[in-house]
Amino acid sequence: MITIRDIEAARSRIAPHIRRTPIMALDQLQAAIPHQPKVTLKLECLQVTGSFKARGAMNRLLGAAKDEIKAGITTASGGNHGLAVARTAFAAKVPATIFVPSNVSPAKVVKMKAWNAKVEIVGDEWSQSNQAAHDYAKKTGAAYFHPFADPLVVAGQGTLGLEILDDLSDIDAILIAIGGGGLISGLGTVLKARRPDIRIIGIEPVGSPTLRASIDAGHVVTLAEVTSRVPTMTCRRTDERIYETVRDTVDDIVLVSDEEMAEASRFLWFEMGIAADLSGAASIAALRKNLPQLAGAKHVCALVCGAGPEGTV
Amino acid sequence: MITIRDIEAARSRIAPHIRRTPIMALDQLQAAIPHQPKVTLKLECLQVTGSFKARGAMNRLLGAAKDEIKAGITTASGGNHGLAVARTAFAAKVPATIFVPSNVSPAKVVKMKAWNAKVEIVGDEWSQSNQAAHDYAKKTGAAYFHPFADPLVVAGQGTLGLEILDDLSDIDAILIAIGGGGLISGLGTVLKARRPDIRIIGIEPVGSPTLRASIDAGHVVTLAEVTSRVPTMTCRRTDERIYETVRDTVDDIVLVSDEEMAEASRFLWFEMGIAADLSGAASIAALRKNLPQLAGAKHVCALVCGAGPEGTV
Repeated sequence: MITIRDIEAARSRIAPHIRRTPIMALDQLQAAIPHQPKVTLKLECLQVTGSFKARGAMNRLLGAAKDEIKAGITTASGGNHGLAVARTAFAAKVPATIFVPSNVSPAKVVKMKAWNAKVEIVGDEWSQSNQAAHDYAKKTGAAYFHPFADPLVVAGQGTLGLEILDDLSDIDAILIAIGGGGLISGLGTVLKARRPDIRIIGIEPVGSPTLRASIDAGHVVTLAEVTSRVPTMTCRRTDERIYETVRDTVDDIVLVSDEEMAEASRFLWFEMGIAADLSGAASIAALRKNLPQLAGAKHVCALVCGAGPEGTV
Repeated sequence: MITIRDIEAARSRIAPHIRRTPIMALDQLQAAIPHQPKVTLKLECLQVTGSFKARGAMNRLLGAAKDEIKAGITTASGGNHGLAVARTAFAAKVPATIFVPSNVSPAKVVKMKAWNAKVEIVGDEWSQSNQAAHDYAKKTGAAYFHPFADPLVVAGQGTLGLEILDDLSDIDAILIAIGGGGLISGLGTVLKARRPDIRIIGIEPVGSPTLRASIDAGHVVTLAEVTSRVPTMTCRRTDERIYETVRDTVDDIVLVSDEEMAEASRFLWFEMGIAADLSGAASIAALRKNLPQLAGAKHVCALVCGAGPEGTV
């Protein structure tokens, strides 16, 4: 889909518009994590707009022809990509219209509106919101920014991998939440090019195992149903190129339940003072399951990919 | 009260028990900060227990005679010191009883209980809770850990200053919230010993200007009333030695309203994904007031000293 060169180019292009987020050791815990190796958190929840999505959306904007966005920008999102697109439209001084499913986080709707976006709640899951976004783009001429199936977006998300390698040269495993697969495709491309020894473990909800099911089937599948209520990690069907990238770069995909993610977000708040959304806590949920996939790993990077108040209440 | 040597000793002593917290540039903002110089946040809200108080409480514990704590530990706190003491007692395997005023953050009471502390709500402000803690100590033999008027506690808080100087060598001003004055005394001692050119600006609530009033009077005063509702920053009267240290090391003390701190905590959440309590947001509240005290400053450190969900809702 893309190469490491695309990601390096994206890094230079978006650098003036995004944050370099801090890393932090996961230590001084009350609750022991089973067989815990050394774990470092990448606090991408502190990225502008609250998630890594700011990277991909900004790279998409900067790659757009001026004419393309003159009627505004639209997308469909579980929340984080919508926020990132709202901010890119704000920066470009064009209107944004974001279609979201009914289980979107109310806190994220508040933030999207604070970035001047118009928010439309359509459907109970992303694919329904996405149909509405496509219809809207067709009707109005607004540019549609796909949340994952777009080489510019994937390249933008991949810049996070370059940062992680700069700051954490000795990791031997990384835990990454999966929604549609854009983030893990970008990171997989970076890591397999630069450090093929690092184990890449993807995480999906038990109730939305899009990539897990596709890898198992040997081709892209459409899930018969999506039962997870985690809006940023539900996806009925991924993209063909995303599937191929994940198949070729990711070592394994594990499943966590919605409740395990909710517990992990409470863990992050109690132990670390970090307000993560459920997808942001997915890596911790996986870590707490004592994965055989991490056996022997000496330094694990757990990506905290999104902010949310879920664990604080 | 203490010297830089006490703080260096505290650093070695508590290092195995606390976190080195990350720093982060305050950038990529939607809302411009008036005349913003370069600002870096010290994210002490990510310290274990959610604030810098873990430093002082741990240093106090490690400085205690074994016999002193055998009947448990007690204190009175607006929330953060109580959490820190609850954790030190948990670590020492002795019971903790924490007295708190009625306006304590419910989220912090939940956390104190999760550290196995007994929490007693007594009075509407800290001095009333503190009387109850003293009575309890007398009755039960529990060790009383003062939140600020204790050289070991001040030395522990001062370790934050050593960390800031290690990570931010070129700052020329720092913004520090004041409750009783323990934190700013520790930081003032470090900074005036090592970098007397750095301007130290303390921040108190308009409704609890304990140090501001004492400095203005030339001696420690007891406030006639405390009207601020920020539990971690209200104090009717400081300690004589704290007063002298602040008088000798702090350049100025500015006042911010409770509402300005509430707005600043919402700012931190929207702009940065940081969940800060109201005292944690006080430095940002001050920064947003365009202080003449920062005129000409080229790099300001704003300490985010405590975690809380206040800005996220």
